[in-house]
Amino acid sequence: MDGKKEFTHFNSEGRAKMVDVSEKDQTFRQATACGKVYLNRETYELVVSKGMKKGDVLQVAQVAGIMGAKKTSEIIPMCHPIMLMGVDIEFQLNDEENSIKILGTTKCKGETGVEMEALTAVSVAALTIYDMCKAIQKDIVIDEIYLLEKIGGKSGHYHKGEI
Amino acid sequence: MDGKKEFTHFNSEGRAKMVDVSEKDQTFRQATACGKVYLNRETYELVVSKGMKKGDVLQVAQVAGIMGAKKTSEIIPMCHPIMLMGVDIEFQLNDEENSIKILGTTKCKGETGVEMEALTAVSVAALTIYDMCKAIQKDIVIDEIYLLEKIGGKSGHYHKGEI
Amino acid sequence: MDGKKEFTHFNSEGRAKMVDVSEKDQTFRQATACGKVYLNRETYELVVSKGMKKGDVLQVAQVAGIMGAKKTSEIIPMCHPIMLMGVDIEFQLNDEENSIKILGTTKCKGETGVEMEALTAVSVAALTIYDMCKAIQKDIVIDEIYLLEKIGGKSGHYHKGEI
Amino acid sequence: MDGKKEFTHFNSEGRAKMVDVSEKDQTFRQATACGKVYLNRETYELVVSKGMKKGDVLQVAQVAGIMGAKKTSEIIPMCHPIMLMGVDIEFQLNDEENSIKILGTTKCKGETGVEMEALTAVSVAALTIYDMCKAIQKDIVIDEIYLLEKIGGKSGHYHKGEI
Amino acid sequence: MDGKKEFTHFNSEGRAKMVDVSEKDQTFRQATACGKVYLNRETYELVVSKGMKKGDVLQVAQVAGIMGAKKTSEIIPMCHPIMLMGVDIEFQLNDEENSIKILGTTKCKGETGVEMEALTAVSVAALTIYDMCKAIQKDIVIDEIYLLEKIGGKSGHYHKGEI
Amino acid sequence: MDGKKEFTHFNSEGRAKMVDVSEKDQTFRQATACGKVYLNRETYELVVSKGMKKGDVLQVAQVAGIMGAKKTSEIIPMCHPIMLMGVDIEFQLNDEENSIKILGTTKCKGETGVEMEALTAVSVAALTIYDMCKAIQKDIVIDEIYLLEKIGGKSGHYHKGEI
Repeated sequence: MDGKKEFTHFNSEGRAKMVDVSEKDQTFRQATACGKVYLNRETYELVVSKGMKKGDVLQVAQVAGIMGAKKTSEIIPMCHPIMLMGVDIEFQLNDEENSIKILGTTKCKGETGVEMEALTAVSVAALTIYDMCKAIQKDIVIDEIYLLEKIGGKSGHYHKGEI
Repeated sequence: MDGKKEFTHFNSEGRAKMVDVSEKDQTFRQATACGKVYLNRETYELVVSKGMKKGDVLQVAQVAGIMGAKKTSEIIPMCHPIMLMGVDIEFQLNDEENSIKILGTTKCKGETGVEMEALTAVSVAALTIYDMCKAIQKDIVIDEIYLLEKIGGKSGHYHKGEI
Repeated sequence: MDGKKEFTHFNSEGRAKMVDVSEKDQTFRQATACGKVYLNRETYELVVSKGMKKGDVLQVAQVAGIMGAKKTSEIIPMCHPIMLMGVDIEFQLNDEENSIKILGTTKCKGETGVEMEALTAVSVAALTIYDMCKAIQKDIVIDEIYLLEKIGGKSGHYHKGEI
Repeated sequence: MDGKKEFTHFNSEGRAKMVDVSEKDQTFRQATACGKVYLNRETYELVVSKGMKKGDVLQVAQVAGIMGAKKTSEIIPMCHPIMLMGVDIEFQLNDEENSIKILGTTKCKGETGVEMEALTAVSVAALTIYDMCKAIQKDIVIDEIYLLEKIGGKSGHYHKGEI
Repeated sequence: MDGKKEFTHFNSEGRAKMVDVSEKDQTFRQATACGKVYLNRETYELVVSKGMKKGDVLQVAQVAGIMGAKKTSEIIPMCHPIMLMGVDIEFQLNDEENSIKILGTTKCKGETGVEMEALTAVSVAALTIYDMCKAIQKDIVIDEIYLLEKIGGKSGHYHKGEI
Repeated sequence: MDGKKEFTHFNSEGRAKMVDVSEKDQTFRQATACGKVYLNRETYELVVSKGMKKGDVLQVAQVAGIMGAKKTSEIIPMCHPIMLMGVDIEFQLNDEENSIKILGTTKCKGETGVEMEALTAVSVAALTIYDMCKAIQKDIVIDEIYLLEKIGGKSGHYHKGEI
């Protein structure tokens, strides 16, 4: 497929289809995606200095991201339903940039997947941070969402260098 | 609220809540969010040169984005359910960057909203482009997701300058 | 719109959108749709002679149809979310045809709707009858799904003659 | 079960249950269902002559049908959740009847399924065509929805003759 | 209705319907429901002594309960969709009983609701506590789920005494 | 894990995760949960004396419970998606207590589950009974929801004594 470089998601009439994966082998698969939320100083400090009755924005974003990963095949039209077997999210705080880097890792055993689930987990976590902070800052930016690493599947181990 | 700069989504115990908007007025509200998908030259050309049996990636992304907007309150934990009254998505192709800019516009009459719906429409459309292209390119990047404009609501007209 | 006979669900680029209804008036709306499930004699009698430990297929179809109506905007891409204010389903048994006619009635107050909700209620009820009976008959046919009547909205009272 | 001709979806109290399939073998399964949407001449021509800024109704219906197939177990009460492994939809235009025939094909490896998924794909695609065209024609009819073919599973190969 | 003491959710054929509320007035409505989760001493102390790398079970339960409230009309067959305008959850820890009391409060402006939303919020929060603790204790009990208070609607102010 | 008595659902930062089960074996699993709905005499008799045009509250609760079981991983944040292979619900009427005991049994083959599915089935069935009866009685109580029995999985056979 990589040789021919053609879209695999379209049928002979040029309309989208859910690709047939029934002849692929079931393998263990793991993917990690990342993304960043850029805040201003004030918002960043409010997020970081949780505790003190201010509430933990990242705790809510974590739950949202994990639940979002489970919704991937419902949200992305041609995604196959997948039995997710593990989802975790990590936040890396960057005091210099006032940014929060989100890393989402997803695991499954299956014929296809699991990178869209990781990317969806990150996107939903980022949107949730946005939502929780939007009353105090309107010009938040979500940035640099991409697949960091993928293990398993026909195409083998993939690792993207940082941007 | 803007004066105090406190999170509004947390209760007195520091746990997240869905903010009470029952005393806010019902107004017409419109929001436009944007985001970008960066492809390589090869993938970009496959997306742009649809027709010819290759299928229209953007048509699928458009449908996904609109359906995604309707799922906002299901995906973002503290978002209120909202009666969306109009959603449209526009794609701006940039031949120099090999990028696709996504603009999502949402409308409602209500006590709250409609920016998260616009941001979700854009995010889901971007993830869908990613999904449809990932078999031919793995290092796609989704970038610069933010609120471009908001009309209506207590805080009035907001317009963000381009990055 | 009826004069120009153009699709209203597409934007200027020819891609689907959710039509903007924010300037329409909120009115009471009611729609009734119908559809038929054709069974063979044996299956028909099993469905009709419920009780006696055989279970009520139509009771399950009724619940499914009502829950299906509430899912309309999730299933039909360009449908607006609607606050359904009443849904009922009626079954008309026809001993000569071995058919079950399903009538679904939906009500709301709103700017748009409510015919897709009625059609979805009927379709889901029909599919549910099919599902409950498919172990004993494979060649069931679902037929003649259409809008029977619509009250309210700009286009006024509509009533379709029987086929 | 075919010998006794009893409903399998009811428990000893006559209430619906989700049938226990845990002792069935996992086999490859494929099903094709079909259905028809009857339009009038004017609407039919608008659908067929897409391009030219008029938008592609069938593209949207295709996406809706595929996403609908994934929702089958959510919509049909006693349907088992199934790991769909491929979904495709084909449209056959009939200029004489002004009709669009929809063929939906679904595949999985599993203990049960996959005909309800094919029937749901067809039904949702048909409802979506209806929705996209209802502003220009109100008396559209959805007709002749049935299972055309099923491969795999205990009952073996099934093929229904055309009506 | 209170005089006749008949079920309102059934049609003349004895099948369930979604009650027609289109002629009811839109009023502000608020409901508070409660429920209790009984743990053993060990589990209770683990839940209470969050922080210290052990994670906050109640934070997750809170998010789940709020998201669950938004799903009420999807889960409870005859429930009307409702525009929730505020949801909050409070936990009362009882060191003597090793119990956690959950109070869920929901608000809306509408023709019907909002008690099922409060009860669903409590039930989902309770199930989430159960899920988070079930690896360390299997005999957890969820108890005493009921409506504590309801304001607004035709039947006026309701307040239930504690059990 | 039982030896250390630590929560398994939290990562090293103390935030919730979906536990990785990819190295667990796939086994047959079955769980039965129960719960009770306490009504007053009048409501109880209306529920029990179905037939006679009054409609079958328990039939609707049964369908709701089974559909609810399928929604478990959507509702409970850290629950894994599971391929449910069988769900049944039983109601035990207690004339002396005016109570309805709900028993929900769920089955799957998988790496994890199936007790939360049984508990969710029971909770949703109980909430549905509440909803169908709330117009005639406001002080209904849902009580004693717990896991009765679990077969399969690493921890083996579990059976709880009645309260």
